[in-house]
Amino acid sequence: MRARNLAVVLGTIHRSGPNTRAALAEMTGLTKTTVSSLVSDLLEAGVVTESGAVRGGERGRPGVAVSLSGHRVATLGLEINIDYLAACVVDLTRTVRLRRTRPADNRNSSPAGTLQGLRDLVKETTAEAGEAGLRIIGAALAVPGTVEGGVLRNAPHLGWRDVRIADLTDLPFAIDNEANLAALGELWFGSRAADFLYVSGEIGIGAGLVVGGTVFRGTFGLAGELGHVVVVPDGPACRCGGQGCLEVYAGQDALLGDLGSVAELVARLESGDRRAVAACERAGHALGVALTSAVHLMDPGRIVLGGIYAPLFRWLEGPVAEGLGVRLAHMRGTPPALVVSGIGADAAVLGAAGLIIQRLIADPAQVLGL
Amino acid sequence: MRARNLAVVLGTIHRSGPNTRAALAEMTGLTKTTVSSLVSDLLEAGVVTESGAVRGGERGRPGVAVSLSGHRVATLGLEINIDYLAACVVDLTRTVRLRRTRPADNRNSSPAGTLQGLRDLVKETTAEAGEAGLRIIGAALAVPGTVEGGVLRNAPHLGWRDVRIADLTDLPFAIDNEANLAALGELWFGSRAADFLYVSGEIGIGAGLVVGGTVFRGTFGLAGELGHVVVVPDGPACRCGGQGCLEVYAGQDALLGDLGSVAELVARLESGDRRAVAACERAGHALGVALTSAVHLMDPGRIVLGGIYAPLFRWLEGPVAEGLGVRLAHMRGTPPALVVSGIGADAAVLGAAGLIIQRLIADPAQVLGL
Repeated sequence: MRARNLAVVLGTIHRSGPNTRAALAEMTGLTKTTVSSLVSDLLEAGVVTESGAVRGGERGRPGVAVSLSGHRVATLGLEINIDYLAACVVDLTRTVRLRRTRPADNRNSSPAGTLQGLRDLVKETTAEAGEAGLRIIGAALAVPGTVEGGVLRNAPHLGWRDVRIADLTDLPFAIDNEANLAALGELWFGSRAADFLYVSGEIGIGAGLVVGGTVFRGTFGLAGELGHVVVVPDGPACRCGGQGCLEVYAGQDALLGDLGSVAELVARLESGDRRAVAACERAGHALGVALTSAVHLMDPGRIVLGGIYAPLFRWLEGPVAEGLGVRLAHMRGTPPALVVSGIGADAAVLGAAGLIIQRLIADPAQVLGL
Repeated sequence: MRARNLAVVLGTIHRSGPNTRAALAEMTGLTKTTVSSLVSDLLEAGVVTESGAVRGGERGRPGVAVSLSGHRVATLGLEINIDYLAACVVDLTRTVRLRRTRPADNRNSSPAGTLQGLRDLVKETTAEAGEAGLRIIGAALAVPGTVEGGVLRNAPHLGWRDVRIADLTDLPFAIDNEANLAALGELWFGSRAADFLYVSGEIGIGAGLVVGGTVFRGTFGLAGELGHVVVVPDGPACRCGGQGCLEVYAGQDALLGDLGSVAELVARLESGDRRAVAACERAGHALGVALTSAVHLMDPGRIVLGGIYAPLFRWLEGPVAEGLGVRLAHMRGTPPALVVSGIGADAAVLGAAGLIIQRLIADPAQVLGL
């Protein structure tokens, strides 16, 4: 019961902003004594803070306002990408306090080596956060693969199967697919629209559908594998065993060809290089086909292109929008808006940090061990 | 408050089967006086009935059990299909009491004429139900098109756009897409599994995804348009304005060719007619491609083929399963099971009747006007 009431009070502070204890009692229906006792616990845990007087306390007297604290606790977002490891520290006001990326070649890597690198990154960022006065209360990890029951089932580009990742930290810990977490990153740190399909362009291509502020995960948590939607049924072989999947046409490898990096591709595109422009057109055309199927099946509010598609948006937008327009016009009138993610490559690692904040708000007693 | 308590009591009776008033009071936390008064209302409305003594009443004495009544009220399911109108009457024990189908050519029809036919059908079935002692308490209508806010937005094969269908009956009324209602029909009257993608093969092809017993509807209620998933991006023109949609290869028109009915196609298939077998193989191949995309995006528990695909299942199963197997094996290990719907063409109209039962259980005061 106390755990439930803690969640009610913290949830109210989160939704309604700074409020006096008296106002919190009124909003929650709890007694002032109970609210005061719960707020004490939250103050002690560093989750809320007291600020100057606000109006609207009882009988018009100014009261001391309680709000989420940005100064004492924070959450850790982590990401294993094919070619880097990343970490970020986010405080409870959703301000990014720290961001670290370490280039790494994780393609067909051994889990042990990569996880050791990640462990070092956790240690380093936790220490750095500590120097800034921030205690890390939990961590979440974004992985480029499917996750079931806390186990990384299949990350084809890493070459990992059935890897249980549990010993990165002693703190509350979660692991999820990078596209799902990137969608949450977009929801909490990007445009903050409540209904969209986030398309995560990476070496693989994932998607996270958000409906009414919640990620749709499907039956086994495997929904959103946009990269293997069939674009051309007898097209080139895909590493998934299928043929003509979207990834074959619009994954990072297809877009880069023999170029070394997305930055290099952007430079070529800016100079009008024909092969680079053609690669983007081919990818955009395939994306238009796959997204048409996704719109018909999943009915997203809008489409947000993220990951490597963010810096390439200028060149992709035309062919993608054209494909959607022609194919969807009759069935839908206006196809869903096509927009670029404002947080680009950071979406997944930010979403991971945000996930722990969400869990804290939903159940502070559990996350804080109160 | 009384409305909420009515729902609590009726919901408990629905979930737990016959129970005494004392047992209901214990299970709901309401007083015995309150339960007795609520049960009286439900008895009077014909929603529940009293049956013989059961054990387990208070202090071990046998008590009179209250259970859902199958004898006094019923709901009406309705369907506008391209080539027929249908109605069914289902009592609260989910027993089908009446089933009527009227052949009709509704393709590119005028709403006024078709709706008059439906109104006649409502009158006729309501009267017939009345003769059997059943009072109809609400009706729902399945339509082959997209529905938003009670308005039929777009039913391409009917040729209808933005038709508000409100005056079929004075009773509580609902309207929904036929594939969504067919999925609910499969859930309540078919296999009763809680996680599946119901594929509704008709002149158009729709799909209803059920996850944890709930239909996934997307952002605007337009999810599940499987018929316009792209199979071949530069394939034949589809009436939706796109090209190479699933419907072009696996809709009823493509399957029948110049044959007059599904029964005729089945007869040809049974006699080993090559053109008929080839049409099924082509449709099955296209279904395998589109369902691969659907599995990757929506992650269904299993795939249920219904509508005209039910009588054709013998001939479709092989090519569909092969396509799913080859394309999904590496990503998923085992692809979702592919099964045939046991309720075939009746799924949508049964789901429509079931929808009103579901609403009655959820909010009896509103549906019954108590």
